[in-house]
Amino acid sequence: MQEKGLLIVLSGPSGVGKGTVRKEIFSQPDIAFEYSISMTTRPPRAGEVDGVDYFFKTREEFEELIKQGKLLEYAEFVGNYYGTPIDYVEETLNAGKDVFLEIEVQGARQVREKFPDGLFIFLVPPSLSELKNRIVTRGTETEEVINNRMTVAREEIEMMSLYDYVVENDRVELAVERIKAIVIAEHCRRERVEYRYKKMLEVEY
Amino acid sequence: MQEKGLLIVLSGPSGVGKGTVRKEIFSQPDIAFEYSISMTTRPPRAGEVDGVDYFFKTREEFEELIKQGKLLEYAEFVGNYYGTPIDYVEETLNAGKDVFLEIEVQGARQVREKFPDGLFIFLVPPSLSELKNRIVTRGTETEEVINNRMTVAREEIEMMSLYDYVVENDRVELAVERIKAIVIAEHCRRERVEYRYKKMLEVEY
Repeated sequence: MQEKGLLIVLSGPSGVGKGTVRKEIFSQPDIAFEYSISMTTRPPRAGEVDGVDYFFKTREEFEELIKQGKLLEYAEFVGNYYGTPIDYVEETLNAGKDVFLEIEVQGARQVREKFPDGLFIFLVPPSLSELKNRIVTRGTETEEVINNRMTVAREEIEMMSLYDYVVENDRVELAVERIKAIVIAEHCRRERVEYRYKKMLEVEY
Repeated sequence: MQEKGLLIVLSGPSGVGKGTVRKEIFSQPDIAFEYSISMTTRPPRAGEVDGVDYFFKTREEFEELIKQGKLLEYAEFVGNYYGTPIDYVEETLNAGKDVFLEIEVQGARQVREKFPDGLFIFLVPPSLSELKNRIVTRGTETEEVINNRMTVAREEIEMMSLYDYVVENDRVELAVERIKAIVIAEHCRRERVEYRYKKMLEVEY
């Protein structure tokens, strides 16, 4: 039996730089996982290529795919659908290859339900870890600014609990290095590999 | 409060190459963890330096330290004691630095009891994963050889269940790369870092 690939999900708060980190990862030569291209009803921007940047669909096509259960996750933003075609993900995982998704937090929640043993990485802005220091040491912010920041931070930290790993996006190269390390490490986790060794003992001869 | 360092334990079956892997790790310039030097009653070999290769002790000194609870783990091999001084490990962890131990499997079991949230890495010989293929495809071994191999493999795989990660020592450089990745990843594990972010929300202002 072919061993299944790992489903790697990169998500995090809006504006944290998920797309930049993902592009940097896939610009590297030693990446052994496949990128799952999203599907959208938003019109292509100048230079965007169907099947490379996105799969571009009409609203009718997209809603038909939702009805058929062909989307692993989807969400609507400012009037457009965005989603992940499930067939590509399942076929690639079944072929033993790792699949990488870069999606919004609502989508990640949907994926977690279907792939509980996926590898979920939460990208956090450096401002989150600097927040406390800034508040404590500078003391120059108005109470309103501090309150707003604390509200946003609270929401972000609450989202974190769904994830296996938290990666700070202080510098893109560092975030990429951590994500690559996490994938290597995850392939060495005892729970994931022990079964392979235990199978050896069942060999008949 | 200073955040504690991570206790990293590298172990595995006798003869797997733990020492070689450990030496290669500490020969690299970007290693951010401290090596815990073992203590032994075995006499120094030519070129071995006290406090570098081992802390060399008499049998009486070693037994006194055991009595005082000053050893995190210890074992006796062919008439000599080997062990890990606990003070260095605790002081280094309390200073927020990661500590690296390279020890035998009996010792690792003792350490797990005292540091359940340490990072335990089991180094396996490549022969373990090749075993099945060899047996199945070659079919040239005698039944006795196969039985012996299966017994050893069974023992090794049973030991594995204590560990968090399994690293194959197929090539030293690859094993080292995996161990370094595991340490980076472990520092990003949500359970380890979430508390740091949650603390931010408790800030009084």
